[in-house]
Amino acid sequence: MSLIVQKFGGSSVADAESIKRVAKRIIETRKAGHDVVVVVSAMGDTTDELADLAHQVTPMPDPREFDMLLTSGERISMALLAMAIRSQGYSAQSFTGSQAGMITDSRHGAARIVDVTPGRILDSLREGNIAIVAGFQGFSRESRDITTLGRGGSDTTAVALAAALDAAVCEIYTDVDGIFTSDPRVVPMARKIDRITSEEMLELAAAGAKVLHIRAVEYARRHGVTLHVRSSFSNAEGTLVINETAEQYAARIARESTTSEDGTVEEPIISGIATDLSEAKITVVGVPDVRGKAAAIFNVVAGAGANVDMIVQNVSAAATGLTDISFTLPKADGQKVIAALTADQPVIGFQSLQYDDQIGKLALVGAGMRTNTGVSANFFEALSIAGINIEMISTSEIRISVVTRADSLQTAAQAVHTAFGLDGDAEAVVYAGTGR
Amino acid sequence: MSLIVQKFGGSSVADAESIKRVAKRIIETRKAGHDVVVVVSAMGDTTDELADLAHQVTPMPDPREFDMLLTSGERISMALLAMAIRSQGYSAQSFTGSQAGMITDSRHGAARIVDVTPGRILDSLREGNIAIVAGFQGFSRESRDITTLGRGGSDTTAVALAAALDAAVCEIYTDVDGIFTSDPRVVPMARKIDRITSEEMLELAAAGAKVLHIRAVEYARRHGVTLHVRSSFSNAEGTLVINETAEQYAARIARESTTSEDGTVEEPIISGIATDLSEAKITVVGVPDVRGKAAAIFNVVAGAGANVDMIVQNVSAAATGLTDISFTLPKADGQKVIAALTADQPVIGFQSLQYDDQIGKLALVGAGMRTNTGVSANFFEALSIAGINIEMISTSEIRISVVTRADSLQTAAQAVHTAFGLDGDAEAVVYAGTGR
Repeated sequence: MSLIVQKFGGSSVADAESIKRVAKRIIETRKAGHDVVVVVSAMGDTTDELADLAHQVTPMPDPREFDMLLTSGERISMALLAMAIRSQGYSAQSFTGSQAGMITDSRHGAARIVDVTPGRILDSLREGNIAIVAGFQGFSRESRDITTLGRGGSDTTAVALAAALDAAVCEIYTDVDGIFTSDPRVVPMARKIDRITSEEMLELAAAGAKVLHIRAVEYARRHGVTLHVRSSFSNAEGTLVINETAEQYAARIARESTTSEDGTVEEPIISGIATDLSEAKITVVGVPDVRGKAAAIFNVVAGAGANVDMIVQNVSAAATGLTDISFTLPKADGQKVIAALTADQPVIGFQSLQYDDQIGKLALVGAGMRTNTGVSANFFEALSIAGINIEMISTSEIRISVVTRADSLQTAAQAVHTAFGLDGDAEAVVYAGTGR
Repeated sequence: MSLIVQKFGGSSVADAESIKRVAKRIIETRKAGHDVVVVVSAMGDTTDELADLAHQVTPMPDPREFDMLLTSGERISMALLAMAIRSQGYSAQSFTGSQAGMITDSRHGAARIVDVTPGRILDSLREGNIAIVAGFQGFSRESRDITTLGRGGSDTTAVALAAALDAAVCEIYTDVDGIFTSDPRVVPMARKIDRITSEEMLELAAAGAKVLHIRAVEYARRHGVTLHVRSSFSNAEGTLVINETAEQYAARIARESTTSEDGTVEEPIISGIATDLSEAKITVVGVPDVRGKAAAIFNVVAGAGANVDMIVQNVSAAATGLTDISFTLPKADGQKVIAALTADQPVIGFQSLQYDDQIGKLALVGAGMRTNTGVSANFFEALSIAGINIEMISTSEIRISVVTRADSLQTAAQAVHTAFGLDGDAEAVVYAGTGR
């Protein structure tokens, strides 16, 4: 008997019928003899609806009150879920973030967890209950106020509780079967990954894969929590996100390679390919090639509150002493950055700005890259054969990212997917709902 | 500068526009130099909608979880109200029942207030905030769980806070102009009462007047809180519910009568007339007239969870040694009491049951009855002239109640209203919405 944390997102508890179905699922785990702690998001679009209501009252809701408002969403879903479990004959109790001991700093809307004191959860488990905990929310000791962790915060709540309770596994239920080698809507032959290291998962999430929230993966890695991403619609195994260091990974591959009878059992070099159409590219044209100009530009960008992703600086033309600097950023941040840079043009002294929102980003991620040479050569060859023009390149130890035209992103992803032997035997099933 | 507690019901905060309007109203009080604590109910029909959701999940929601669910309603309205006030340039903070120190016992759905520790409210006022408090909810120290006070609980929250904070007045905002001498939908010439004693208010509320919750009036009387029932749609003075003992009342009347120049300033003998069509009458026919039979009957009724109102026992017929016992009770409880009595018929030994849901109840209430003779004579004469048949009578020191046929209740009420000089100069305005 072990302790399992299960997290259900808003689409899993969107209405009374879904809540009853999730209750059954939770009870199955309890019946198997486990202690169960459930983290639940607000029902369906409740959080968005509450935010809309706030914006009807005022365009700039007070952050403390906005958090107070939004946290009512999980209060509703968790109480209904506890009722549903009880009505099926199992004891359950719901707890707010505050009651569950999710202690955060006092940054409303983006609070960080500073401590987890799950005394009441442990008491409740000891009394034989299934404990239902509100995701996304916490409590600041300093201000004595209710806080929220920001978007995707329920995943983080689940992981933090799993760490504090020393859970065997933290199961993240979603409406897909797990993590895929690529987005099945982009690469139909994508297949489910059985296991992936948290390091790779982080790179995939950072590169645009949406199934897991990057902050939750970071928290899981730091605290050694094993994640299991699986479907709330089937009992199939999903994807295990395991915590292996580079050394552990290399050692395991070596061990598995030598112990396998036919020598073919080997971890894939590449885990997956992430695609992202949500970014735009800004090119600052004619920047004087003197020290401090790049810093000046990115100070302005940061001041506008935008997160820059990839950056490329051209070699400066000797004749003019001018260079171009390109960077990508979320499309949503595009106009405010253009405005901020334009305002500071006299100080920075560049010639003009180009804005391009027709780009696509493709990232190849795999811990196996570390020990395998030739990955980048194969990658660029595959793109070349497919006729893809590469506009920007950026790499990490286990990732290669490129920017292409938006309309060639799918062709690029399929070509690379095939070249690295990731194609499955059949087309992946894509569920209608993909929100979480 | 004094401290004022203001309570706004669900219909006053039904949507974003209403919330902004209520915010303006609160700010006016703050501008006048007062400290303001606001108690707010859930928006519009939110509580009913949440209850419906629970019943979609299970026919018998767990009481603890049901309270957890319902309390999200005030969390939404109070946060929006605080935002609205802030967006109009005044500082405000919202507090849950728990944060506001509303300590209750742990009877979910019907919790009683055992202590009020409004330390955070005082801190917030000291910092210059308007404090917004969730009505209807509390916190049990014993179980560490969230509780609710039951229907009408927000009035009680407001009065309890007013008592704990030693507020100058507790203003109950509603969609009518105050307490009327009778329900204007029944008696069009009803007029607003300027002031009424809490004792009379209790009798009116017990007799079916719906504007104030009886429990809140009781709490106000016990703790010496002055209530001001007024409209959230106008700035007119409403009805003051004052705490006078019989002695204080008599002394004031004597004083005012002697000090008035023309001798006509005198408190009215009668404050108001309550009408009620929500009750039914059960007659237990042929009860053996021996000791303990009435007790046996009302034990069965209480066991079925019904609240009996009026009781009449006929004089037993000497020949048979049998008597009839009639009592009134809420129509909603009628069928279960009939079932319970039928089940125990062999033990009690009565002959049959009659159920009559076509009755009306009329109550005449006035502290002035104590010192004025002839009130009941005038009352019965007015009814007689109007041709009303009286089926049951019950009295207290400041109330006379009668049961009539339902279809003659309005005629009866108008006749009595006129006979006691309560008619106003014009028809009362009846607002479309009457829910609170």
